Amino acid sequence: MTRRFGSLAIIGLGLIGSSIARAVRAKLPDVRVVGHDADASVRDTARAIELCDVVADDAVAAVAEADLVILAVPVGRMEEAARAIAPGLAPDAIVSDVGSSKAGIAEALARALPGRTVIPAHPVAGTENSGPAAGFATLFEGRWCILTPASDAPATEVEALAAFWKALGARVETMDAAHHDMVLAVTSHLPHLIAYTIVGTASELEEVTESEVIKYSAGGFRDFTRIAASDPVMWRDVFLANKDAVLATLQRFNEDLTALQQAIRRGDGARLEDWFTRTRAIRRSIIEQGQDDAAPDFGRKH
Amino acid sequence: MTRRFGSLAIIGLGLIGSSIARAVRAKLPDVRVVGHDADASVRDTARAIELCDVVADDAVAAVAEADLVILAVPVGRMEEAARAIAPGLAPDAIVSDVGSSKAGIAEALARALPGRTVIPAHPVAGTENSGPAAGFATLFEGRWCILTPASDAPATEVEALAAFWKALGARVETMDAAHHDMVLAVTSHLPHLIAYTIVGTASELEEVTESEVIKYSAGGFRDFTRIAASDPVMWRDVFLANKDAVLATLQRFNEDLTALQQAIRRGDGARLEDWFTRTRAIRRSIIEQGQDDAAPDFGRKH
Repeated sequence: MTRRFGSLAIIGLGLIGSSIARAVRAKLPDVRVVGHDADASVRDTARAIELCDVVADDAVAAVAEADLVILAVPVGRMEEAARAIAPGLAPDAIVSDVGSSKAGIAEALARALPGRTVIPAHPVAGTENSGPAAGFATLFEGRWCILTPASDAPATEVEALAAFWKALGARVETMDAAHHDMVLAVTSHLPHLIAYTIVGTASELEEVTESEVIKYSAGGFRDFTRIAASDPVMWRDVFLANKDAVLATLQRFNEDLTALQQAIRRGDGARLEDWFTRTRAIRRSIIEQGQDDAAPDFGRKH
Repeated sequence: MTRRFGSLAIIGLGLIGSSIARAVRAKLPDVRVVGHDADASVRDTARAIELCDVVADDAVAAVAEADLVILAVPVGRMEEAARAIAPGLAPDAIVSDVGSSKAGIAEALARALPGRTVIPAHPVAGTENSGPAAGFATLFEGRWCILTPASDAPATEVEALAAFWKALGARVETMDAAHHDMVLAVTSHLPHLIAYTIVGTASELEEVTESEVIKYSAGGFRDFTRIAASDPVMWRDVFLANKDAVLATLQRFNEDLTALQQAIRRGDGARLEDWFTRTRAIRRSIIEQGQDDAAPDFGRKH
């Protein structure tokens, strides 16, 4: 029988941490939820909105009763957060996380928590908003949560963590941490880097004012501003932690961009049309597989 | 008193042309609408869905009664479409268009329609769908329509065209064609080029399968697939027609991307965080100015 968790500690109460708290309350009402955040103002907000059963001021106290601890802090703070909870961890507690890069985190958690059961995880879900008030219970519904257990991780514990995420509405996949980092470099990190770049570029041109860019953004630009509004610290850490895979995919992107640039310069319409026709099919597949809304324009109101 | 149009001819019944037909029916029910498309199957669809008062098989016949003719064909077909209607145009008819680049179209229409009143226009609105069934009456609501009249265009006729677009719900701005092309290169053409590129890149990596890219696309990638699903012929023509401005803005983008790439390689977190903090403000301005939805994640259902 799959192990069920009775008491959860969430360390870090931003968008993801607070969404986990809300989802657990909605889907697993018997699970006790203790939250902690290093930032006192975040703890105050969490208390004011009654996010958890208890919001602890102290990381050690937060995890004392927990059989599952989820670290939901920026990637660059994972090791520090793990060290902070170490003295309070129960012997059979499982420690997991929600970080967007996995190989580096696995190493950091192994260093900080020797001999502990650590099973890294990454729910591929989010919005451009951040902070404890931005979370919501259905964030993980139909989204994938990727577990990257080490090869010697106990299968029953991996199964228990998978069951937990499924209970929150997620679909669960397991893969190697290095492969995760390559997949996410393509599907998430590179898109964020490109969006951050173009929004910065557009806001600093001499020929076109920032107010014009904003005014006429419905021609396509506004789509990029959504992910370029994501949390700066979280994304700084992701790029630093997943440097190699991000730079490798960026190189491939640059090659393709150079090829299209050349096609435009040379007036090679056939090459452009061929490329643009192929990319259209990808959108259809994403909609068919339930990973985006079929409504035109993301279902924006018109 | 501003001239009001009594009879409109729309040449090209795709997303934009068919949306104009629907908006006119909803907002200006006294205006007679005659449609034409060079493609017989598009004409059949337009008749089946009763898009216009009349769908004409012939371009000359379509414009015979019109005091306003709007060319809504891909940019590369504007000149041909203008030549096709020339023999049928009434002496006082105004000819306009909806193309996404303006300087080249102004020249093409002047060549094809010497001595005629031509006032180019660009409604900055659309979705990733195309064809006569994809249009809807509220597409232009709250969006900007940019008019780029030549310096010697009759002011009363420019005013009449502006009033027409306002009646469809659009906000109207007038600017020089060359400046339009630079503004749209930034706010629309470059974003489309980048989106087309990254979607192509992601679908052709060896290390990550296309099915993985689709599966985990909610991490950011799926946002790009929407505009990379836009009409391939329309966009081929836009890049060829607005080549100089697109290549100029692309160069600026490449410089910025190289700088961020270098920051990642060197582990310069401060530079990344600073950049990502600045881009966040742009999103807020776009929402404040009514150019996008304030709902997180574009208001997608969760």
